[in-house]
Amino acid sequence: MKEKRRWVLTDVDKQVWVETLNLTAGELGVRGAAFVRKRTLHGGLSDGVDVVEINNGAMSITVVPTRGMGVWRGEYKGNPVGWVSPVRGPVNPMFVHANERGGLGWLGGFDECIVRCGLENNGSPGTDVVPNNMGEPTEMTLNLHGRIANIPAHFVAVEVGKGATPEISVTGMVDEAMLFCPQLRLVTRISTRLGSNAFTITDEVVNLKSTTSEMQLLYHCNFGKPFMDRGARLVMPLAETAPRSAYPAKEVAEWSLYRAPTPGYIEQCFWHVPVGDAKGNTLALLRNAAGNKGVAVRFNLKQLPCFSQWKNTGAESDGYVTGLEPAVNFPNARVFERKNGRVVNLAPGRTYRVDLTVEVCGDAASVKKLEQEVRRLQGKTPHCLQPGPLAKYSPQA
Amino acid sequence: MKEKRRWVLTDVDKQVWVETLNLTAGELGVRGAAFVRKRTLHGGLSDGVDVVEINNGAMSITVVPTRGMGVWRGEYKGNPVGWVSPVRGPVNPMFVHANERGGLGWLGGFDECIVRCGLENNGSPGTDVVPNNMGEPTEMTLNLHGRIANIPAHFVAVEVGKGATPEISVTGMVDEAMLFCPQLRLVTRISTRLGSNAFTITDEVVNLKSTTSEMQLLYHCNFGKPFMDRGARLVMPLAETAPRSAYPAKEVAEWSLYRAPTPGYIEQCFWHVPVGDAKGNTLALLRNAAGNKGVAVRFNLKQLPCFSQWKNTGAESDGYVTGLEPAVNFPNARVFERKNGRVVNLAPGRTYRVDLTVEVCGDAASVKKLEQEVRRLQGKTPHCLQPGPLAKYSPQA
Amino acid sequence: MKEKRRWVLTDVDKQVWVETLNLTAGELGVRGAAFVRKRTLHGGLSDGVDVVEINNGAMSITVVPTRGMGVWRGEYKGNPVGWVSPVRGPVNPMFVHANERGGLGWLGGFDECIVRCGLENNGSPGTDVVPNNMGEPTEMTLNLHGRIANIPAHFVAVEVGKGATPEISVTGMVDEAMLFCPQLRLVTRISTRLGSNAFTITDEVVNLKSTTSEMQLLYHCNFGKPFMDRGARLVMPLAETAPRSAYPAKEVAEWSLYRAPTPGYIEQCFWHVPVGDAKGNTLALLRNAAGNKGVAVRFNLKQLPCFSQWKNTGAESDGYVTGLEPAVNFPNARVFERKNGRVVNLAPGRTYRVDLTVEVCGDAASVKKLEQEVRRLQGKTPHCLQPGPLAKYSPQA
Repeated sequence: MKEKRRWVLTDVDKQVWVETLNLTAGELGVRGAAFVRKRTLHGGLSDGVDVVEINNGAMSITVVPTRGMGVWRGEYKGNPVGWVSPVRGPVNPMFVHANERGGLGWLGGFDECIVRCGLENNGSPGTDVVPNNMGEPTEMTLNLHGRIANIPAHFVAVEVGKGATPEISVTGMVDEAMLFCPQLRLVTRISTRLGSNAFTITDEVVNLKSTTSEMQLLYHCNFGKPFMDRGARLVMPLAETAPRSAYPAKEVAEWSLYRAPTPGYIEQCFWHVPVGDAKGNTLALLRNAAGNKGVAVRFNLKQLPCFSQWKNTGAESDGYVTGLEPAVNFPNARVFERKNGRVVNLAPGRTYRVDLTVEVCGDAASVKKLEQEVRRLQGKTPHCLQPGPLAKYSPQA
Repeated sequence: MKEKRRWVLTDVDKQVWVETLNLTAGELGVRGAAFVRKRTLHGGLSDGVDVVEINNGAMSITVVPTRGMGVWRGEYKGNPVGWVSPVRGPVNPMFVHANERGGLGWLGGFDECIVRCGLENNGSPGTDVVPNNMGEPTEMTLNLHGRIANIPAHFVAVEVGKGATPEISVTGMVDEAMLFCPQLRLVTRISTRLGSNAFTITDEVVNLKSTTSEMQLLYHCNFGKPFMDRGARLVMPLAETAPRSAYPAKEVAEWSLYRAPTPGYIEQCFWHVPVGDAKGNTLALLRNAAGNKGVAVRFNLKQLPCFSQWKNTGAESDGYVTGLEPAVNFPNARVFERKNGRVVNLAPGRTYRVDLTVEVCGDAASVKKLEQEVRRLQGKTPHCLQPGPLAKYSPQA
Repeated sequence: MKEKRRWVLTDVDKQVWVETLNLTAGELGVRGAAFVRKRTLHGGLSDGVDVVEINNGAMSITVVPTRGMGVWRGEYKGNPVGWVSPVRGPVNPMFVHANERGGLGWLGGFDECIVRCGLENNGSPGTDVVPNNMGEPTEMTLNLHGRIANIPAHFVAVEVGKGATPEISVTGMVDEAMLFCPQLRLVTRISTRLGSNAFTITDEVVNLKSTTSEMQLLYHCNFGKPFMDRGARLVMPLAETAPRSAYPAKEVAEWSLYRAPTPGYIEQCFWHVPVGDAKGNTLALLRNAAGNKGVAVRFNLKQLPCFSQWKNTGAESDGYVTGLEPAVNFPNARVFERKNGRVVNLAPGRTYRVDLTVEVCGDAASVKKLEQEVRRLQGKTPHCLQPGPLAKYSPQA
């Protein structure tokens, strides 16, 4: 296949919507066992949820247009990429009440491998003051991690590129917009190359409004077994690390180390300032104890300067998971992040671009190679590990 | 066609529901290019929304049963009737969280040409005290503009009348009711005559409860281009006008005048007391600067004594729109309106009826004719323009 | 039919979902006029709701998987079993906003004959302190009657048993679970024997989490006409009865007696401590004034030690209904119930089982028989009727 091919699955403006689609490698015009499958789920909390599965022959990823184009989960050569959440998803946003439980209701839909937190705000719930319809400063409650994950895409298409190992991609548009509020559009392209062990998210957030808007964006990339196990480690090039809260010294010293599933474990978070190459490119690698399985998140520090590590090594039934979270900010309440200069101000018509790649290692050699890459990036930069929370990163400090 | 014909599209009690319907002029039994089309939208925020489009051969209107029988938008001889909202609709109420953003969450579904605000309350969000299940006075938060626009109709039918220029209509029933709360039923008929430039809404709100209920009802009629442009004017017969808040004197003096799209513009509202004929009939005309396009809202002052003008001439991307809003009250918080005697008390079994017509002018002659009608109604009644907000109309005064 | 037969209607994990199913007696392998019918409702507030009707030849019950496997309503030989609520249901949970109206928004979906209240909490809305994601005590608002009635089942099946009068049942699983929150699974079996006048609910609530969880469970069994009418009575074996609030002495004395539909009537509640047999089995019988129609709820005091009687004899239009409510607790705010030792602590992996049967009497003889059974259970146990609310049962005391 020489030409790029394209299938539109959803276009609300043109009243296009495809309930079911099955494209074989032949229909996609590629070699091998690749396929694309779109279906609508029924029953339970998934009722009415659209999912698009892209299989490149070696790796499979499932994108959820109904949940803001998040990546539900993937698989690479038998390794599940994602985690097992207490809630069975993918959850239709119509069942999510973000304001319940003191603003933690977002958790009712949280079971994806990669979920964007934003766009107007992300982080802990909290009150903030914004202008109301009359332009008057008004106190408002912001919910955990914002709205974008619970807004369905109004446009979705599948594309196949050219060449010997073409890219298969799903593109989508999600608008976080209403009168008197920010009007931020997410234009995303999630792609994977035929036979590859990686997929790439290319996002553009556009300010559709005639005035400057605040914007926050965090990529909550969540992984459990088999990449996390007792003795697994987070490996990444770092300039500084601080615990979110005051944790015991031993816990801080072992920030990079993961425990076995531990009933009753309370989450710990570490705020990191990563080191990148001259262009700002860097990566975070989660590798298992044996060092023969790993998953890496590649991102760019000019786009996503902050990195949060969420350690949640509770029992398997309760969500045994770590979040690797590159972002424009740390996930504190927005008022705190604004004060510390970590809220983006996006001018009218301007775009904020993010490129993020998830890469899976299925053997020791490829894990080792990434570890070497991390060492090269670290180079001679010292890593400053703070013993306690810092006032510039944590309201808890 | 001599007999009245009828197609039931939705009847929840009888488990009738039609997913798709296409009626040609022939099937409707009328001449010309008229048609009726019912479909269910899919994808984005419109997923699962039922829409009924009535085209009388000259004018088209789209009614949304899923959104309380509002009128999404219309078209008359190439002129769009409605506005372009930052949110892409029509929005399924399942995605609207009315209590979010300090009670402004209703805006998340707001993109219709005509949306009813009510029935238990409308206007600004605010707290009010109502009896709870034990009859005890309890403080409750009321959301902006109430619930009716976010309740799906449980009965919908299409009808065609008799005669040479028969009416095509869609009728519907929407219940705003739950245990321990008001039980108000909206019975609506939205009709247009073959080839006409107008459509009429005939509403009856019935108190189904055995006790008297409060009721508020406002018709939020929203128009943008081509009727509103720089220099467009609101023309209507008035006894008194007061700004909602303290605006600069020049702004008050130019209450009837509209600006070009203005980035960063903050809404202005004017509260009007219109003048009508002996029966209470009156109209509000929005005409463009050139005076060759206009849209009028005809209503009756015995039914809808208050009229709010919402000027929101922001950038086109942000919602360039004016609301012409005849109502039983001004859209302040209900406690304020109650204190000022503008909340209806509806006795058990009693009905509150409203007739409202939207008429579109596509040329200068018809605009001029309506302006003359306004002048006749104004007659010798003086128009008192208040320089600032009045305590009886505005809590801001 | 000798073998047990089974039809899976919903299995989200396996992507099984059946939109429509009609099983005749022949297909079920039973004699007579029995049938099972599954369909998805469309339009109004019922849009997208799955219902399963089981008809055993004499009695029919309709189970609603979309509403947490509640029993919407039944019919026995022409007698409707249930009530007429102001809201037209069954209501899709996507339209229910539990936090609105000061935490009473659950009422927006309340029209079932039997609805479970729980699982994390039930009773009056109120604030409570629970650990947040960081393990810190955090104040949270709990809504009226909890979440389980507004969670769709992720697994549903129909089964037919063996023997001459086999049981027809519908089984289902509903998870009330999300990260950092209780993870309680309801496994339910609702069954009725061929030609019988009764149906049985067998519930198991399993704690899926690795830590102990609080649990509350109340069966809100609601009946109106023809079982309740002027002069109808609640008949049950009791050790103690106390009014919820301070009611007039005459009202307390007549706790068991029901009025005719009374416009403006304010609900009254009585908290009862029932008497059972040696195994804890007991029953509550609602019989009409004539004594020729009755409906009984059989339950076990070791499972459900508390019994609330909700008298709501308002006008028929407003919900003429009584709730017979066996439960682990009284439906006060959870903080109060915890203080009084009426919140279940469920250890990891442990199950809380409940068996509850609803039995309908269509003639005087069968009513009399149940009244005799109540008298036998009462035996010589004195019934202590408290003149006012007790501090151990009512925060109002």
